[in-house]
Amino acid sequence: MLLEQINSPDKLKQLSVEELPKLAEEIRQFLIESLSMTGGHLASNLGVVELTIAMHYLFDSPRDKFLWDVGHQAYVHKLLTGRRELFPTLRQYKGLCGFPKMSESEHDVWETGHSSTSLSGAMGMAAARDLKGEDYKVIPVIGDGALTGGMALEALNHIGEEKKDIIVILNDNEMSISPNVGALHNHLGRLRTNKGYNKIKEEVEQLLKKIPTLGEPMAKTLERIKDSLKYLIVSGVLFETLGFTYLGPVNGHQLDELMESLRLAAKTKGPVLVHVVTKKGQGYKPAEDDSVNYHGAGPYKIESGAFKKKADGPPAYPAVFGNTMVRLAEQNERIVAITPAMLTGSKLEKFNEKFPDRCFDVGIAEQHAVTFAAGLATQGMKPVLAIYSTFLQRGYDQFIHDVCRQKLNVVFAVDRAGFVGEDGETHQGVYDISFMRNQPHIVIMMPKDENELQHMLYTATQYQDGPVAVRYSKSTGVGVEMDAEFKMIPIGKSELVRQGNDVALLAFGPMVQTALEAADQLAQRGISARVINARFAKPLDEECLDQLARENLPIVTIEEGTIIGGFGSAVLEYYAQNNIVGMNIKTLGVPDIYVEHGSIRDQRREVGLTPEHIADTVNKFLPRKKQRA
Amino acid sequence: MLLEQINSPDKLKQLSVEELPKLAEEIRQFLIESLSMTGGHLASNLGVVELTIAMHYLFDSPRDKFLWDVGHQAYVHKLLTGRRELFPTLRQYKGLCGFPKMSESEHDVWETGHSSTSLSGAMGMAAARDLKGEDYKVIPVIGDGALTGGMALEALNHIGEEKKDIIVILNDNEMSISPNVGALHNHLGRLRTNKGYNKIKEEVEQLLKKIPTLGEPMAKTLERIKDSLKYLIVSGVLFETLGFTYLGPVNGHQLDELMESLRLAAKTKGPVLVHVVTKKGQGYKPAEDDSVNYHGAGPYKIESGAFKKKADGPPAYPAVFGNTMVRLAEQNERIVAITPAMLTGSKLEKFNEKFPDRCFDVGIAEQHAVTFAAGLATQGMKPVLAIYSTFLQRGYDQFIHDVCRQKLNVVFAVDRAGFVGEDGETHQGVYDISFMRNQPHIVIMMPKDENELQHMLYTATQYQDGPVAVRYSKSTGVGVEMDAEFKMIPIGKSELVRQGNDVALLAFGPMVQTALEAADQLAQRGISARVINARFAKPLDEECLDQLARENLPIVTIEEGTIIGGFGSAVLEYYAQNNIVGMNIKTLGVPDIYVEHGSIRDQRREVGLTPEHIADTVNKFLPRKKQRA
Repeated sequence: MLLEQINSPDKLKQLSVEELPKLAEEIRQFLIESLSMTGGHLASNLGVVELTIAMHYLFDSPRDKFLWDVGHQAYVHKLLTGRRELFPTLRQYKGLCGFPKMSESEHDVWETGHSSTSLSGAMGMAAARDLKGEDYKVIPVIGDGALTGGMALEALNHIGEEKKDIIVILNDNEMSISPNVGALHNHLGRLRTNKGYNKIKEEVEQLLKKIPTLGEPMAKTLERIKDSLKYLIVSGVLFETLGFTYLGPVNGHQLDELMESLRLAAKTKGPVLVHVVTKKGQGYKPAEDDSVNYHGAGPYKIESGAFKKKADGPPAYPAVFGNTMVRLAEQNERIVAITPAMLTGSKLEKFNEKFPDRCFDVGIAEQHAVTFAAGLATQGMKPVLAIYSTFLQRGYDQFIHDVCRQKLNVVFAVDRAGFVGEDGETHQGVYDISFMRNQPHIVIMMPKDENELQHMLYTATQYQDGPVAVRYSKSTGVGVEMDAEFKMIPIGKSELVRQGNDVALLAFGPMVQTALEAADQLAQRGISARVINARFAKPLDEECLDQLARENLPIVTIEEGTIIGGFGSAVLEYYAQNNIVGMNIKTLGVPDIYVEHGSIRDQRREVGLTPEHIADTVNKFLPRKKQRA
Repeated sequence: MLLEQINSPDKLKQLSVEELPKLAEEIRQFLIESLSMTGGHLASNLGVVELTIAMHYLFDSPRDKFLWDVGHQAYVHKLLTGRRELFPTLRQYKGLCGFPKMSESEHDVWETGHSSTSLSGAMGMAAARDLKGEDYKVIPVIGDGALTGGMALEALNHIGEEKKDIIVILNDNEMSISPNVGALHNHLGRLRTNKGYNKIKEEVEQLLKKIPTLGEPMAKTLERIKDSLKYLIVSGVLFETLGFTYLGPVNGHQLDELMESLRLAAKTKGPVLVHVVTKKGQGYKPAEDDSVNYHGAGPYKIESGAFKKKADGPPAYPAVFGNTMVRLAEQNERIVAITPAMLTGSKLEKFNEKFPDRCFDVGIAEQHAVTFAAGLATQGMKPVLAIYSTFLQRGYDQFIHDVCRQKLNVVFAVDRAGFVGEDGETHQGVYDISFMRNQPHIVIMMPKDENELQHMLYTATQYQDGPVAVRYSKSTGVGVEMDAEFKMIPIGKSELVRQGNDVALLAFGPMVQTALEAADQLAQRGISARVINARFAKPLDEECLDQLARENLPIVTIEEGTIIGGFGSAVLEYYAQNNIVGMNIKTLGVPDIYVEHGSIRDQRREVGLTPEHIADTVNKFLPRKKQRA
């Protein structure tokens, strides 16, 4: 086994070039086996085995800076930088992170999770290098999908203008037409880098003119991809115009081709783009055939590629969202769905099948997604934007400036709200209550179970007085029965779910279940806890809060979100603004830390959002006379 | 006078084509005169006189939808839609808004203020139109600068993919080389629209090949602009690749050319881009010569073009920032400055002159700006990102994901924090405390006067433990003396500025001065108010808060920011988290409304952030025994 010896890039460099394909094969086997047990981003990592080997073989990390865009393709990089033995803990609590992580290794110089940030980070590193008179290389690796995100284009424009020495590696894994076009372009790439640029340019034009003679299917395919930003990107036109030297495309699974291109790139002055064509799942048939489901995969059986069956149980909230959307759209033709490249994750496939004209996948483009929804709403449509909480951060100004300020009837289906489990700190959906709540007009709700989710979505699509956010967890529902008919939830009304007289647990979303369990435990200690399903973080149920004030009942707010400016703070603000003094209030939620990867259960435990911890806290917090245990 | 008769587009349509140039002339005169008294965006509006006339003459607003990107060029549109008589109130309190405003007119179908939103809004309107089977036209008008913002490119990609009927008008007012290139391209434009597209394409290529023979200066200019996204945009390559029909460039001050192009555009299926070359300030020499200062101009003398002198007074905070940056950079070579297209507004010109290599204007690209700063910081530089509070909303995810989460030493100079006056609700800088505060690691401070600003900037650039935001007002300082030497401000320490025993006024930023005046007024009523300069919204001065708790002193927090999740909420949270019950706290700030245009003084008055109102509130709020008046 070569792999066992390779615990650093230095060790890798001691291998002969001839040994590298064997190493690649070993890495593939290792990933397929290891991830069959832990799950993880298999397909994307199988796609970059050779690329990552070539990078570490030729360049000098961490002196040279590798920036992995999005970062879920950094497993091979982790393997080659001494983290092989941690793979059984991948994406588990206190285990190996699924993304680059500075605290894990000096080779992780840039942390990611969200897409399209690597070029901006690279530009910053290159500018710093030049100002300090240093000479390391800066090498962002970015996928073709991430490159169409707005901020990546902003960065390309700046890099081109400043003419910095940066080697951008375009990891293009969606070019299904690679064999032919690849061959043609490969030829072009060599021509371009070996001869004077102007002369080459003419040759390129000559070659491009021959394209119409290339036969029917080829021409059609070219036609199909021509009218898109993607064409500008994969053809290199965009980069050349911006002042980049364009190399490629090269076959990302041929180490010799790859190394040749990277060597050329290293010698070239100014910004260079190396266009590397890879295949997601390369070398593992099930992942090659179904790269969507093998993108972020659960554990699977190696031989068949079948995913290990999850225990039967209640549906997860996103699945309930997907089903409900179909039913809502059948009843209301004004409803359209929007997703920024998360059709599958947001469970909108069925909707897309039934209503293709009313389903818009805008790509990785959260800013546009939000304002596009605003435009639809100005004309009386009812857009439902399915967006992960963490990605709504990308459309925050659009949320403020275009939607809330114009008081438009846009529905935000804020998915992955609360903890997200294995993706960890870059993806936690714990800020949305806090950052949405400061806008006038917005209504923010969260269901206590999957049945309430469908009613909230119905209510949101019926509401005609401005924007509504329905946030819901990634986790499974409670297992309640689903009502056959939709019901309106009165805006700003909470729901009493358990009577009690010693303390009020005012819980938001799935925390209602947690509060009910905490109440059971408190009952055993002789404390009678009232449990209220808050339903709304905005507007608050003022009648309910006034009632609690009249009773002078201690209040514990519970939410799966930051306690800074969250739902609990809204309650504090309400009493302060209304000069109600002396209320005994404790706000429970996510404290002022970044919570790392693990299961959602681990994450809730870490911050004390468990029935046990809540019961303990309540017990300690209650004024002396109320403590009984 | 024609203009006096034109109070609607219908009236405009009754004029003959021959009368239109006279109308244009009258509009120009009207704007020059009216804005000489009120100030406003003169240059950009003089540039679109003919364009706006042509649009309203040919199209049918409000049935056809005009979307004015950024929106400061909508004055002519306002004139032609019945708002002439309101111009003496332009940008004043309760007066005519400087941007499109739905509540002003049915012709304002899309509100703007921030840049680059119009294409997304247009795509939404066009999609709604098609789903509803309607057939109005959707016509966004966007400047060349706004088009390089990431979200505009995201929208272009989507529009091209969906092939919607949208007429994008590119208002290109930076193309100084217009005469020659214009003529050439104009010819191309005609060719393209009159003949079959493929045939034209060849002709275009032939013509482009002739460019090298066009003579030296021309060729050089072309060379200069070639390597940039701008080239892709103004050459039409980007649009053609994305599936747009490209028309132009046309001279934006020739009504016949304009109308011809717009008529062609109206007949063309699918997305069309009409490239209109205009001159900022057209027809008024002082504005033509100095379009930067006539962008958002104050009142001026018509004949000379000289701006009316403002009363002497203390410098405004942004000017103090600009001067301090130069001094800081002289002492610390790690400091670099970044601005997203606001070099002048952020007062960084002097810095840019002295340290051109350390000053980066990245264009309208806030997302990139933030993450670029993060990249610089990873390599030990000390980037200072000068960004308006309202525009930092555009880089929110980058603030979270790239800067705070990675705990990088980036300094955010959050300019225009608090009320911004005449720009009004789209630009108010009142959310940043709330949306920044929920992130771990961030330090948030605001100076009570201009002297403290320089010390805070010094402190921020010295700080080595993560990101720091120094927010400061657009308004003038207090007039205090500036210390010659920089001083460190202890992180998380407030400052007692006035002793008092009945109530504590805990004020943030310029509100300290307001609190001092309120304290004077309270003293006259026999109430002794302590005034504390909070300095930090995060971390809070816990020692100070504990002391207030020990004294059980009523507290009034005062900030120029939303009271939802703001500094006051942080104080409430502190006491709740520490089980300190019974504190009497009132949080003053911006309530849950959008505050419209006017002077900063008007805006502060509207929300009660005046000494008088604060004194009254304190008086009413104090527990009975403390009320003396």
